[in-house]
Amino acid sequence: MSDDLARMDATAQAELVSSGEASPGELIEAAIERAERVNPEINAVIHDLSETARAAASGDLPDGPFKGVPFLLKDLGAANAGEPLHMGMKVLKEANFHSPLDTTLAQRFKSAGLITIGKTNTPELGIVATTEPKAYGATRNPWDTSRSPGGSSGGSGAAVAAGIVPMAHANDGGGSIRIPASNNGLVGLKPTRQRISEGPIIGDNMSGVTVELCVSRSVRDTARLLEAVHGPAPGDPYVAPPPLRPYTDELEDESGGLRVGIMRRPAVEGLEVAKPCLEAVEKAAKLIEGLGHDVDEGNPLDMLPAGEGGPDIEDSFLTRWAAGQAATLTQLGMLLGRPITEHDVEPLTWTMAQIGHERTSGRYLIDVGIHQGLSRVVAGWYETGYDLLLTPTMAEIAPPLGEIDTAAPDPMSAFTRCLPSGAFTALFNITGQPGINVPLHWTEEGVPVGVQIVAPFGREDLLIRVAAQLEKAAPWADRTPPVFAAAG
Amino acid sequence: MSDDLARMDATAQAELVSSGEASPGELIEAAIERAERVNPEINAVIHDLSETARAAASGDLPDGPFKGVPFLLKDLGAANAGEPLHMGMKVLKEANFHSPLDTTLAQRFKSAGLITIGKTNTPELGIVATTEPKAYGATRNPWDTSRSPGGSSGGSGAAVAAGIVPMAHANDGGGSIRIPASNNGLVGLKPTRQRISEGPIIGDNMSGVTVELCVSRSVRDTARLLEAVHGPAPGDPYVAPPPLRPYTDELEDESGGLRVGIMRRPAVEGLEVAKPCLEAVEKAAKLIEGLGHDVDEGNPLDMLPAGEGGPDIEDSFLTRWAAGQAATLTQLGMLLGRPITEHDVEPLTWTMAQIGHERTSGRYLIDVGIHQGLSRVVAGWYETGYDLLLTPTMAEIAPPLGEIDTAAPDPMSAFTRCLPSGAFTALFNITGQPGINVPLHWTEEGVPVGVQIVAPFGREDLLIRVAAQLEKAAPWADRTPPVFAAAG
Repeated sequence: MSDDLARMDATAQAELVSSGEASPGELIEAAIERAERVNPEINAVIHDLSETARAAASGDLPDGPFKGVPFLLKDLGAANAGEPLHMGMKVLKEANFHSPLDTTLAQRFKSAGLITIGKTNTPELGIVATTEPKAYGATRNPWDTSRSPGGSSGGSGAAVAAGIVPMAHANDGGGSIRIPASNNGLVGLKPTRQRISEGPIIGDNMSGVTVELCVSRSVRDTARLLEAVHGPAPGDPYVAPPPLRPYTDELEDESGGLRVGIMRRPAVEGLEVAKPCLEAVEKAAKLIEGLGHDVDEGNPLDMLPAGEGGPDIEDSFLTRWAAGQAATLTQLGMLLGRPITEHDVEPLTWTMAQIGHERTSGRYLIDVGIHQGLSRVVAGWYETGYDLLLTPTMAEIAPPLGEIDTAAPDPMSAFTRCLPSGAFTALFNITGQPGINVPLHWTEEGVPVGVQIVAPFGREDLLIRVAAQLEKAAPWADRTPPVFAAAG
Repeated sequence: MSDDLARMDATAQAELVSSGEASPGELIEAAIERAERVNPEINAVIHDLSETARAAASGDLPDGPFKGVPFLLKDLGAANAGEPLHMGMKVLKEANFHSPLDTTLAQRFKSAGLITIGKTNTPELGIVATTEPKAYGATRNPWDTSRSPGGSSGGSGAAVAAGIVPMAHANDGGGSIRIPASNNGLVGLKPTRQRISEGPIIGDNMSGVTVELCVSRSVRDTARLLEAVHGPAPGDPYVAPPPLRPYTDELEDESGGLRVGIMRRPAVEGLEVAKPCLEAVEKAAKLIEGLGHDVDEGNPLDMLPAGEGGPDIEDSFLTRWAAGQAATLTQLGMLLGRPITEHDVEPLTWTMAQIGHERTSGRYLIDVGIHQGLSRVVAGWYETGYDLLLTPTMAEIAPPLGEIDTAAPDPMSAFTRCLPSGAFTALFNITGQPGINVPLHWTEEGVPVGVQIVAPFGREDLLIRVAAQLEKAAPWADRTPPVFAAAG
């Protein structure tokens, strides 16, 4: 059964359980077997939770939409009490750190019926757009094992692409859902800011930069998971606007008539966009037009002040991320009972934390203010009559492993090197709108190249609707990478 | 007509216009006359906008719920393009600074039909709980002109209490609506975080500390104004949960059965609560019980970690406010084309900005994280089955003028001196829930002493419902201060 299951999405696997054709235990055993077979080639799963998964599968499972379906948690963000939580950090690996509590989202995954069979690799603290932490080594891209799976949800991206599980947890503070989705040929939806509670430890991470959900192979899996886990928890400092109707209703909505703009260059001066990324946009634009929508060249870029006198988007983004790392290392030190030192973390992490200790709280608010000004610009563009924005997901295809080097002589060069991967995605972490990667294009060498569609604040419904239409028009379910659990 | 109008709330004045009994011009002239009569005694209105008000009254007014009603804007926050905006600052007064644009809220006030006849006094940048800026001098409390009207919306509070206008703009980042409401015997609702757009310049001020609305004499005026001006604007970084039904529907809802807890001491150790403030709570508790609600001694305080090992709420609150002042002075310097210096601002403002330049961005996020943890504690208390929390609004009655001295040898002593005024209110700026001051009690000397009622996040409806019930049970409309525009 395993080879068939590897090609099934989470919804199809759940139907096997609900119809009695397969038991949760069978699904879990098959997934564990797939992980054992392909993970050595890609190093996507770093914590094995087979035993707790088997125990869960043989017990009473919640009657959720994914009852009995195997799942993976990213080793950063959502976590179950008592399970390893290392966030790509050597210091937590050596401390054999385990999560002291269940996060709200991990509980919701459980309530949806998902069974976690392991945890996936992530760069240290999710800082970069590749997944090559010193603590656990590089995750390899199953489409080309010399290339990066992207990051920071690269472990989840590679595991899903390789057929280990149909869908895995991911989160995104600059592109960390959408970039691995693009590099691994997957659906990756970054929801609207605060769509899903980050509680109970986190309220509003780095003033609203990060958001949680998943990477999946089908649009319906993402829609059904979002429907199952979205919403605030008591004490969340902010809440997203409520959905207009169930997200799953969008899956059957074939209506056209949306107005879609195209943004072909990022809001960072001098950054070239690779040809395959532009080809992906052309292909997507034609498909979207073919579905009865109106596509034109309008985009918010001309409304963004740039160059001399314009805001330094890159440097103000660094301010927020650096503050976040400074705060996190301090908090981890309190948790571990001793200060985190330079020897505990990768050079880039340490350097960023130092920047976070140098830049002042006043500057932090000024830079957040700059970003909130950009939010008005982007929202103002939608107000001129656009429903969606189409962009390349990335300005480059999946880079070779080793190229984003967090231990480079100038560690900050690793952060800068992430720009071609993250420039199109990070803008919408700053401005808060939801964005989705849709896998519509592959290079001649078979490397996936996604496009990003971005909706107005709170309008994930539009993303799911159009992504589902695209999936019907140009299905990708049959495309599998060279490293695939059902290969042959 | 003026004497009668001084006793009428904004709703009653709007009815005169809609019924044709009075014209907007007559209402405006009467308000200008009242201001001329009593303002010299209280110094509440610092910018005279009579001429623009007269022009507006004689033109086409929007058909809003307050068409033709005289109004005052606080000289901090909402502003109309081309009108003075000094924020209590000598440097802006000397620069003869005028707002370069309309804020979203000022436009909504206009659309509601309100006519702004002037702007009200505020402490420099709204930092303290009294209204005695060096730039414009002290506003006096119309109930006792030796006492503070509170702050930072003390100009608006005194103007409304003295009968100049029935309702005035106010905003609240630590108690700045509720404290002046308590000191001036008014209704003062601080809405849920992000209930009303702070745009377009501000997105989310100091990570969600401040919120805008008004002070008014009647509950219905506050409900109708909130109904008219609430909601996000495009590009707001966050939005509040949508209301369950129109706020005005609550005004006629006489249902009981809510569960109300009482919090008699603040979350600050060693701070005594003055006897009249506790008497006000006892009186309110009895009234609330008499309305058919259940009142008991439950409150979130026991769930808040305090003392050794607990979070330093006061110091982390300072981190946010200090960062805010550092950012604001830097931004003002950019606006004015030269850096703001020590000589441009009051000693407390300068000292706080220096703290904001010293404390790091990492610390800022740690302290915001502490506050977001407190939000979970307070929200968790409501989850145990409570609908509302009753507290004193302040731990002291309106203090004598001069006691909160922003130019004291140790300027930070002025910030600390605000604790007895702000300890009960500031907690809910930190945690985001809406709170309302209800004027139910006066000392034997005739000094008003309010109570605060706090609802779960997003539930202003409950505050309006119960405040309207209390207003019917123990009406205060006939109580007027010694300094009153219709005195005699």
